[in-house]
Amino acid sequence: MSSDTLDQVFNKIDDLSEVFKKRLSNAIAIQSVSSDQTTKGREKVYQMTDFLELQLQNLGAKVQRYSLGDEPDTKPVLKLPDVIIAKYPPTPAANKKTILIYGHYDVQPEGPGWDQSAWELTEKNGKLYGRGSTDDKGPVLAWLNALEAYKEAGVDIPVNLMFCFEGMEETGSIGFSDFAQKNKALFENIDAVCISDNYWLTTRKPCLTYGLRGINYFTITIAQKPLQGLQPPVPLHSGIYGGTVHEPMTELIIMLSKLADVDGNILIPGINEMVDTVTKEEEERYKKIDFKMDEFKQTIRSEAAIYTEARDTLMHRMRYPSLTIHGINGADPSENQTTAIYPKVTGKFSIRTVPSMDIKKVGDLVVQYLEQEFEKLGTKNTCEVKAFGESAPWWLGNTNDANFTAGTAATRRVYNTEPDLTREGGSIGVTLDLKNALKPNTSIMLLPVGQSDDGAHGPNEKLSRKNYIDGSKLLGAYWYYIAHPQA
Amino acid sequence: MSSDTLDQVFNKIDDLSEVFKKRLSNAIAIQSVSSDQTTKGREKVYQMTDFLELQLQNLGAKVQRYSLGDEPDTKPVLKLPDVIIAKYPPTPAANKKTILIYGHYDVQPEGPGWDQSAWELTEKNGKLYGRGSTDDKGPVLAWLNALEAYKEAGVDIPVNLMFCFEGMEETGSIGFSDFAQKNKALFENIDAVCISDNYWLTTRKPCLTYGLRGINYFTITIAQKPLQGLQPPVPLHSGIYGGTVHEPMTELIIMLSKLADVDGNILIPGINEMVDTVTKEEEERYKKIDFKMDEFKQTIRSEAAIYTEARDTLMHRMRYPSLTIHGINGADPSENQTTAIYPKVTGKFSIRTVPSMDIKKVGDLVVQYLEQEFEKLGTKNTCEVKAFGESAPWWLGNTNDANFTAGTAATRRVYNTEPDLTREGGSIGVTLDLKNALKPNTSIMLLPVGQSDDGAHGPNEKLSRKNYIDGSKLLGAYWYYIAHPQA
Repeated sequence: MSSDTLDQVFNKIDDLSEVFKKRLSNAIAIQSVSSDQTTKGREKVYQMTDFLELQLQNLGAKVQRYSLGDEPDTKPVLKLPDVIIAKYPPTPAANKKTILIYGHYDVQPEGPGWDQSAWELTEKNGKLYGRGSTDDKGPVLAWLNALEAYKEAGVDIPVNLMFCFEGMEETGSIGFSDFAQKNKALFENIDAVCISDNYWLTTRKPCLTYGLRGINYFTITIAQKPLQGLQPPVPLHSGIYGGTVHEPMTELIIMLSKLADVDGNILIPGINEMVDTVTKEEEERYKKIDFKMDEFKQTIRSEAAIYTEARDTLMHRMRYPSLTIHGINGADPSENQTTAIYPKVTGKFSIRTVPSMDIKKVGDLVVQYLEQEFEKLGTKNTCEVKAFGESAPWWLGNTNDANFTAGTAATRRVYNTEPDLTREGGSIGVTLDLKNALKPNTSIMLLPVGQSDDGAHGPNEKLSRKNYIDGSKLLGAYWYYIAHPQA
Repeated sequence: MSSDTLDQVFNKIDDLSEVFKKRLSNAIAIQSVSSDQTTKGREKVYQMTDFLELQLQNLGAKVQRYSLGDEPDTKPVLKLPDVIIAKYPPTPAANKKTILIYGHYDVQPEGPGWDQSAWELTEKNGKLYGRGSTDDKGPVLAWLNALEAYKEAGVDIPVNLMFCFEGMEETGSIGFSDFAQKNKALFENIDAVCISDNYWLTTRKPCLTYGLRGINYFTITIAQKPLQGLQPPVPLHSGIYGGTVHEPMTELIIMLSKLADVDGNILIPGINEMVDTVTKEEEERYKKIDFKMDEFKQTIRSEAAIYTEARDTLMHRMRYPSLTIHGINGADPSENQTTAIYPKVTGKFSIRTVPSMDIKKVGDLVVQYLEQEFEKLGTKNTCEVKAFGESAPWWLGNTNDANFTAGTAATRRVYNTEPDLTREGGSIGVTLDLKNALKPNTSIMLLPVGQSDDGAHGPNEKLSRKNYIDGSKLLGAYWYYIAHPQA
């Protein structure tokens, strides 16, 4: 197979574009909302598992379904949707690399604000509207489109494919981490992983994503210390008790004020010291990324940008940590005039972590710092700082490896441009779940199909027809270039 | 009439105690919950108006009902319960002082946690349990009991009485302020006012209450500044935007941390300077008040007391200002792990004011201070500080006047002890409404019937039988001593 044979695949993709649109339309019509905890809702997710299984079987793949058991705390008890593992060819060729492809087939709920049906694919001005069009049914089906085009064009697929599609991604990938750990054998021959479940940084330029920030989530609880043998304290009337008791809310506010400044700098000693120094190469890389501050402002809809330069904004999204206070539990959140002193209040905050922070140490430093600062207050109330849930670690890929080289070549071939090299500011849990199940140093790359303005999770989610069709080509080209690193 | 004739009244009160208990039982059975905004709920409040009107008419009083119109924002529209004005004798005697007696006949909702019915008077160990027993049906009926006892004993009542009973006190006395202003003529011949709607400071010792703290309520809102022509900003994902935008929650926390310290000291310049200096006489007064820190701790159910001395605790409840942060609106108040940066958050706090703070100036100082501090932050977000609702001013009576002299004499006579002289830390709006409708310098005194542990507003609200019966004597004795200042 020469590089020219890719043109046959591309032509076939163009020929089949209406078929592919119909495939997406059929998928969008299945309301596979994984957060819907009704039996009826969950059945639609199962229906989507069946749909994908059939599609893959029709394309000649060998499909295995892996049960994840029951979803915890559901009533009636809901079975988690199966993970689909599909191999093409059914028996891997010994002389080809094996590529693991991850995607998810569940979607967010419809939500308010749609200008057309969320569950009926609608094409307007070259855009394909519908829930899941870009997140993540479009990209999942783009892989299937590529497979179909290779086959229809009579072109041999130059790699062994292993698809891994789950149905709970939008609800925290419940069960996936366990599945990956229990089935490590499935992943032992994987040479590279490609995930298409994020977006370009802009509406113009394709990108490869090589990093994610992690997240450490914390709670800090200030409480009045109960008297032994009595019921716990209740809210007190601020008229009667204001000025005579230590108020947990006053103290929580003081504690939370010690976390970050208005420019987003983290004030906890030792945190910033763990962040990698910016290299010359990195400086250059960020300068090259196509990103306009005017567009950023439009996206955030406000004047709240801290930095005037795109480079600073990008670096702070991608390679610096951040700290956000998300809310307070236990005080009065209403708009009403209330007059209580609350006996126990909890602040919630999170730190986005980056290379090479030791995430265990991040937790220790936060607890130690807040405990020391609380000690200084000299109050009779108590303070408890806790890690909330499991920390998702940051992830950083190697942009110089064969996986990224193939991604770059595929992008050049389809879009005739260099891809931006980006990191995501958020965390994608499955990336780490897969990393932990793979052989050490197996490369993972995020190869997005959609654009920054696709509106995943919101109303009027869309995928441009061009991105859907060119994306199918991109993913197909990626198979070629990872098999032919010198091409 | 000599002081001895009071014994005849007291004996009659003892004779009639079962009749008085039945009167309270009948009143408690009427579920006059003013915050119940259903037609059926409101009808019970009207039923209580009728009950009181009939009781007063049977005792020979002339009753007039004053309509307060409709309750704003109710659907279906609810008529406010009438204010009852009742005069005894129907034609005031020219040679007697006229005393205004305020009380309210509505109650709090039942709420959870009762060990017996809230709406059926239950006597256990000398305690009369039921909603409204102490707040405020018991005290209101104690006035009626006193009137009945004077009449049954054939003793002339030495003052003209004007009762003023409202039915919306537990819901902010809606309409009462307007009523008082519109009907100033009603109040022009009033010589003194007595309100029985608070409690002793302890379970042991009666008190007269001569002061109330006021309340100034504030909100501070930090918001991202919207871009012209765009929809307002929405919550942003902290993964994607954390570190790149000014976060309103971080800034609100910083602003709120500048209000008060852990010992309840207000940090706003100029506030504490307006507080009256403690006089020697005051020092002595606070020393004398019967108040134990151990009991205080039991009441607050925690170790959160700031002061170890009763005197300090009392002074900070009664004669020093305080500041409480009540909650934050616009962030996530749940227990869940959420990851949003909220575009607009509002903190709510209040300052309890005391003599001789200029409450207008309090508002100005708060706004000016926070605006200056926000300026220093150097953020692109916006800050708005607002007074929320109307400020309730503080109130201070004159404990040396004829009204308090009579209250003291009545207490000595019934309880054989000096009353504690107390102030309430909270505000009682009607005190000021009445003050504003009265001739200047008309004395108001709060003369409580119930005890500190009566549990108004909570489950198992009670009034001790002894307090109910002795309270009826106390109020009757008060009439005697205000008519006979030299007795």
